[in-house]
Amino acid sequence: MNNFEFKNPTKIIFGKDTIQKLKEEIPANAKVLLLYGGGSIKKNGIYEQVKSALSDVDVVEFGGIPANPEYAKLLEALKVIKQEEITYLLAVGGGSVIDGTKFLSAAAVYKGETPWDILANNIRTETGMPFGTVLTLPATGSEMNSGAVITRDEIKEKLAMGGPGLFPQFSILDPQVIVSIPKRQLANGIADAFTHVLEQYMTYPIGAMLQDRFAESILQTLIKVAPKVLKDPTNYKAASNFMWSCTMALNGLIQKGVPTDWAIHAMGHELTALFGIDHARTLAIITPSHYKYNFDAKKQKLAQYAERVWKIKKGSKNDKAFDAIEKTEKFFQELGIDTKLSDYTDDYEGTAEKIAKRFTDRGWVALGEHKDLSPDKVEKIVKMAY
Amino acid sequence: MNNFEFKNPTKIIFGKDTIQKLKEEIPANAKVLLLYGGGSIKKNGIYEQVKSALSDVDVVEFGGIPANPEYAKLLEALKVIKQEEITYLLAVGGGSVIDGTKFLSAAAVYKGETPWDILANNIRTETGMPFGTVLTLPATGSEMNSGAVITRDEIKEKLAMGGPGLFPQFSILDPQVIVSIPKRQLANGIADAFTHVLEQYMTYPIGAMLQDRFAESILQTLIKVAPKVLKDPTNYKAASNFMWSCTMALNGLIQKGVPTDWAIHAMGHELTALFGIDHARTLAIITPSHYKYNFDAKKQKLAQYAERVWKIKKGSKNDKAFDAIEKTEKFFQELGIDTKLSDYTDDYEGTAEKIAKRFTDRGWVALGEHKDLSPDKVEKIVKMAY
Repeated sequence: MNNFEFKNPTKIIFGKDTIQKLKEEIPANAKVLLLYGGGSIKKNGIYEQVKSALSDVDVVEFGGIPANPEYAKLLEALKVIKQEEITYLLAVGGGSVIDGTKFLSAAAVYKGETPWDILANNIRTETGMPFGTVLTLPATGSEMNSGAVITRDEIKEKLAMGGPGLFPQFSILDPQVIVSIPKRQLANGIADAFTHVLEQYMTYPIGAMLQDRFAESILQTLIKVAPKVLKDPTNYKAASNFMWSCTMALNGLIQKGVPTDWAIHAMGHELTALFGIDHARTLAIITPSHYKYNFDAKKQKLAQYAERVWKIKKGSKNDKAFDAIEKTEKFFQELGIDTKLSDYTDDYEGTAEKIAKRFTDRGWVALGEHKDLSPDKVEKIVKMAY
Repeated sequence: MNNFEFKNPTKIIFGKDTIQKLKEEIPANAKVLLLYGGGSIKKNGIYEQVKSALSDVDVVEFGGIPANPEYAKLLEALKVIKQEEITYLLAVGGGSVIDGTKFLSAAAVYKGETPWDILANNIRTETGMPFGTVLTLPATGSEMNSGAVITRDEIKEKLAMGGPGLFPQFSILDPQVIVSIPKRQLANGIADAFTHVLEQYMTYPIGAMLQDRFAESILQTLIKVAPKVLKDPTNYKAASNFMWSCTMALNGLIQKGVPTDWAIHAMGHELTALFGIDHARTLAIITPSHYKYNFDAKKQKLAQYAERVWKIKKGSKNDKAFDAIEKTEKFFQELGIDTKLSDYTDDYEGTAEKIAKRFTDRGWVALGEHKDLSPDKVEKIVKMAY
């Protein structure tokens, strides 16, 4: 097991009818900017619950934060924060709204020339403007971690940021929100959380027995609840386990003391930037070819995953490892998610070369747990995913 | 799954040679009271590592905190805190030293008449004197939770306390400390952590699939590493997984959203108070008879535990559940821990009645996840453990 440090101060408030607890978490004298996305919260009743809980608090609203939160749009919100002298941010939404709020938390207190620095130079935020979240879409885990990914459309960039000052002060997770989420987004959430776990698990054995078992626990739970969540989102047992699994998948716990990969995300982000494909779907496109290309490096863990998660008992280690990749691809497909780039666009020729070049230009020459995936290898992996 | 709230702000610093990181965690202008136990840290090199890391800090020392930290002794330390105008506490030890430090953290800021109130009335501490820990004995999980158990010998009482202000600010976990721990204490640590998990898991199904799997993960890991830790404490893979399992067993995570039992601890505490038997050993004495007595209420989870943790595949649900109890008792015995009260004392007659009376006198009339274990049932369970 590698040495590690772990601290996660976010307060989780989990369960039925918990949105009303908002009023106990936000300081009474705060001036709150309520941030949300495309407005679905106004249709599903969440907006009313939030407003009712905040009836005694001074609240300004800012809606319209898009999926893959866009830098230009966030600058508009930043203007509101300054003009209205906002002191507290409240994200009501999924990972995109929460990630956007983290950028604003950092940008609101940033003293440098332009907030773009925070992304371009990956400046860590030690203390941001305080914020909380009401999660409306389980998927990214952003509700209990300190990282964010922000998109800047005009230059087709998608960049990460973070820092210990960017943990939400609290996050309210009411699994009942799942009822009003479109099936496509539920499937995306499951695939996203599943891949988050894989990125922190599918590397090489390092003797972190407990972390391995925790990762496998999340994978097993997601596999079990996925068909139930898609079939009947009012199934509270399935919904609550799905929601808690998504949070635990990326709150830092399972990555402590182990090598991590994240090459799937790095490649997937490019597909979103180039084609606008849903984040989770880009992961499903890249995962199988990434594991096949890096089969030798990952086969110990692939075989363990096969045995413990998919209960594959027969065959050689290689057979089990290969079967596990197939099982994973089939799992994505059973969620209704296509796993080839050509399923999403006819214009895929040249994509691999383009992505390899973008990595080279950006100076990212080495991805993966061994930092050995150079752009030429990335090119091969993406090509395998056509 | 039940509704829950979860917040654990303790910073964990885990791994080889991490004690030196102390200097980054304690404010430079702090006046520190360094608390420890019987003095083993002066023999195993930990004391030197701590002192060297704190060479630039003003440190006062207080040693001699006994196992089952004793109220009278802690009052002496409290005097030192006041006289020396201490601002920061540092526990270097196992659960007893850390629990004692939590009491002092609370007592140092308590405004009431006598600090005994904190225990007698279970007064929750919202903000205590800040403290950190260097863990020298994996077992209780006290290094990452906000609870403590304090003994008052003169009245043979052992009482619990806690509150959100009593999380350590940081805890340093270097698995190499295990090398110098006597086998008896290593075995106790394993049994203690194992039973902590059981108390939060062995109740009835509530649909908390992920929490169940996390609990099973810790149990499986402890079962796997236990013989290795006992055979060769220099085995770092075993030591590090043992240490992290003990912390995760009682840092609040696996108890969220599920019913918990804790009757084994309630009964076990009495055996320590009456006979001075090691805490962990009292748990091993009570566990088998508790599960046999409450077989019907617990058999769903006992059978799940049998299948997933002990890989018992054959037999009826009842058979599996019963076999799992036997396996658990055998696990304790293989650690070198006797599982009958009569193995520890010849003077056991009348103990069950005495404990039942103490519960009645104290007004504790209902233990367990169903709050249905009245003193007459406690009497039967303890008698079965003779």
